[in-house]
Amino acid sequence: MLTPYQIILKKREGRILSPEEIDYFIKEYTLGNIPDYQTSAFLMAIFFKGMNDGEILHLTRTMMSTGTVVRLSDVPGCKADKHSTGGVGDKISLMLAPLAAACGVKVPMVSGRGLGHTGGTVDKLEAIPGFRTGLSIPEYKRILKKVGLVMSRQSDDLVPADRKLYALRDVTGTVESVPLITSSIMSKKLAEGIDVLVLDVKVGNGAFMKDLARARALAKKMVQVGRLYGKKVAAYLTDMSQPLGREVGNWNEVVESVKMLRGESAADDIVELTTKLTAEMISLCSGETRASASQRVKRAIESGAGYEKFLEMVKAQGGDLSVVENPAKYRKPRKVAEVKSPESGYIASMDTFKIGMAAVKLGAGREKIEDKIDPVVGITFLKKIGDRVTAGDVIATVQANDEERAKSAKADIKDAYSFSGRKCGRPELIKERIA
Amino acid sequence: MLTPYQIILKKREGRILSPEEIDYFIKEYTLGNIPDYQTSAFLMAIFFKGMNDGEILHLTRTMMSTGTVVRLSDVPGCKADKHSTGGVGDKISLMLAPLAAACGVKVPMVSGRGLGHTGGTVDKLEAIPGFRTGLSIPEYKRILKKVGLVMSRQSDDLVPADRKLYALRDVTGTVESVPLITSSIMSKKLAEGIDVLVLDVKVGNGAFMKDLARARALAKKMVQVGRLYGKKVAAYLTDMSQPLGREVGNWNEVVESVKMLRGESAADDIVELTTKLTAEMISLCSGETRASASQRVKRAIESGAGYEKFLEMVKAQGGDLSVVENPAKYRKPRKVAEVKSPESGYIASMDTFKIGMAAVKLGAGREKIEDKIDPVVGITFLKKIGDRVTAGDVIATVQANDEERAKSAKADIKDAYSFSGRKCGRPELIKERIA
Repeated sequence: MLTPYQIILKKREGRILSPEEIDYFIKEYTLGNIPDYQTSAFLMAIFFKGMNDGEILHLTRTMMSTGTVVRLSDVPGCKADKHSTGGVGDKISLMLAPLAAACGVKVPMVSGRGLGHTGGTVDKLEAIPGFRTGLSIPEYKRILKKVGLVMSRQSDDLVPADRKLYALRDVTGTVESVPLITSSIMSKKLAEGIDVLVLDVKVGNGAFMKDLARARALAKKMVQVGRLYGKKVAAYLTDMSQPLGREVGNWNEVVESVKMLRGESAADDIVELTTKLTAEMISLCSGETRASASQRVKRAIESGAGYEKFLEMVKAQGGDLSVVENPAKYRKPRKVAEVKSPESGYIASMDTFKIGMAAVKLGAGREKIEDKIDPVVGITFLKKIGDRVTAGDVIATVQANDEERAKSAKADIKDAYSFSGRKCGRPELIKERIA
Repeated sequence: MLTPYQIILKKREGRILSPEEIDYFIKEYTLGNIPDYQTSAFLMAIFFKGMNDGEILHLTRTMMSTGTVVRLSDVPGCKADKHSTGGVGDKISLMLAPLAAACGVKVPMVSGRGLGHTGGTVDKLEAIPGFRTGLSIPEYKRILKKVGLVMSRQSDDLVPADRKLYALRDVTGTVESVPLITSSIMSKKLAEGIDVLVLDVKVGNGAFMKDLARARALAKKMVQVGRLYGKKVAAYLTDMSQPLGREVGNWNEVVESVKMLRGESAADDIVELTTKLTAEMISLCSGETRASASQRVKRAIESGAGYEKFLEMVKAQGGDLSVVENPAKYRKPRKVAEVKSPESGYIASMDTFKIGMAAVKLGAGREKIEDKIDPVVGITFLKKIGDRVTAGDVIATVQANDEERAKSAKADIKDAYSFSGRKCGRPELIKERIA
């Protein structure tokens, strides 16, 4: 058996690690028997030298095995989840989960918090007063059986290897690696006990993957690993070169989702993407065509069945239904600042990373782990890429709780827009389906 | 100013680090303000992406500046040192330093202990009873002025950055990197206050650099960095595909060196290499030709002037002259085992790494930092590459202090030899001069 040092050298030289070597390194690291400094060198060697399909599969399996693997065999029906690689304004889960449940899919959704410049579903749900995302396994199963969906945060014993490795990768420049991302995401999703997984791989200046080729490579690997575990998996490459929808924040994204579920005003992109991903999930579960599943999603919006499921879930998880049904009752931000267009012309691009960071600085995300999120702050985008504007038009508004942060966010948002004298096309929302 | 994380990313992407970035990372790491786990990822990124000449120069300068830089301007004459990248049986310093001093060069030699499978000059010197390698700076200067040479170990405040970085590289698979080796060696040598440096870069299966091209690249960088600091530097690429000389161990290498200095029996390779490197050192100091310097070295052997210098130095550093002058008085090993040739033919190759490790296991080196060295154990090679042997001939002897280790070393040494039916050439000892 090789030592940790020899395993690092072997990967550094680009050789293929055996299942035993991968198993040994990951388990001993998780137990604290291999130090961080050897592990970060190992991760950097993986960053440069990659892993083949077998290695990724073993890495995923080993990581999964470090924690609790949930068994949902006693919950009847097809169990499905969706995972997004993270973006700005990505509230799709809040609509997709209840719509899929309304169409008969069981949705045991496990989500994360915001990471870096991106928002997290758990933070958005927790903007609802009383909403609990930390559920015991029996409680989680009970809600799933009764409501058809449950939305929880990751428990401490879901893939502890990933918790430790992710924290290390985050500070050692080893995040953007296909084998490491694949095993991190898939080990957690495979531990959930689901049958079907739909992956939303974001591409663009607000995504962790900036270019299509790398996003495609990641999507393919994740689909492949899921399949090798006997799961039905499909992935979509979707646009993250501007925020999704009109709202970025926590409570304002809940409100935007509720309006969509009620069939009220909704941005085209969130309707299109939610419908596409939900229909894929239904189709993978039921075997019906995606076109037919898509019709069912539309009916679940029109009939209010999705909205009913959402309310049921919020109630079952302790959330205050009154503010969900009447968002005007919610606490208001102290300051609302308008961002005005400095030019006349067309919006050519938006620096989505900068927008995400501006939202974090406003208090919609965390700069440090211990930071508290302010659910009421956020940004509303009235104009996005391709829209025509006249100098002085309000293109966005900033909701803040203090003058200084409002001012700073206003400047950042203004900076994030760029303009052109010529007509600009809108970015293609759904770029590819990989299955 | 970038954060440590951003500096890691910048190097990971192959970009050139600014002097300020290198300075900041190295100094803060040495102070304990950047953790090992970020530093090992940084080192692995340097391993893969390299550094340009400017970066190596700044890295060397920064490392040097973390500790004491010795000033020898009050010692008259040309101050010169030699550095070997490490090998098996490499006792050249023990002969070179006194011979150069006998020819008028001031030799303030600072050496290391054995590392991995290689031996270290300090360990060899300490085989002499009473010999002190830990000297205060005033004592060091006094001996240098009086004797013309001094041989000490690295003090704790010689490049503390390297001490910390080397320990980390050693366990994270980041040793074999030209920028990291260059800065490690040159920062220590430049801190010694010397005018002239001769580098012996070992190549072959007993060296850290296994192939000529990489050894050449390392030698060129070290020569370049030394020159940029205004030093006169020359490097030699020399053979390490078999042990140097006949002895591997500590006391037995001292005895072998003493015999050579006395003009008694000496292996051709140690005479040739010592003469070449000493002549280079004299020539760089005095400006005379290497051929003329070479003649002076030969005379210093014949006249016994080199041996006199060696005795003076041993005496000045507290060593017991009686055993040096009469090695038969030294403690004897309890077991001497003979290694017999299993075949008739020619010796085709020797696994020098295996030989070095066999010596370490015998107790001639350390497996763990806290291990104590046994100066009397070692191996004597009676036959080396190219020699003709008959099955049953004694090709080597093992000196051990217990039966089990003797047996194990005997088997390792036998394994390390390989034979051929055809005549085999001897490896070229001195392959290239780089200046």
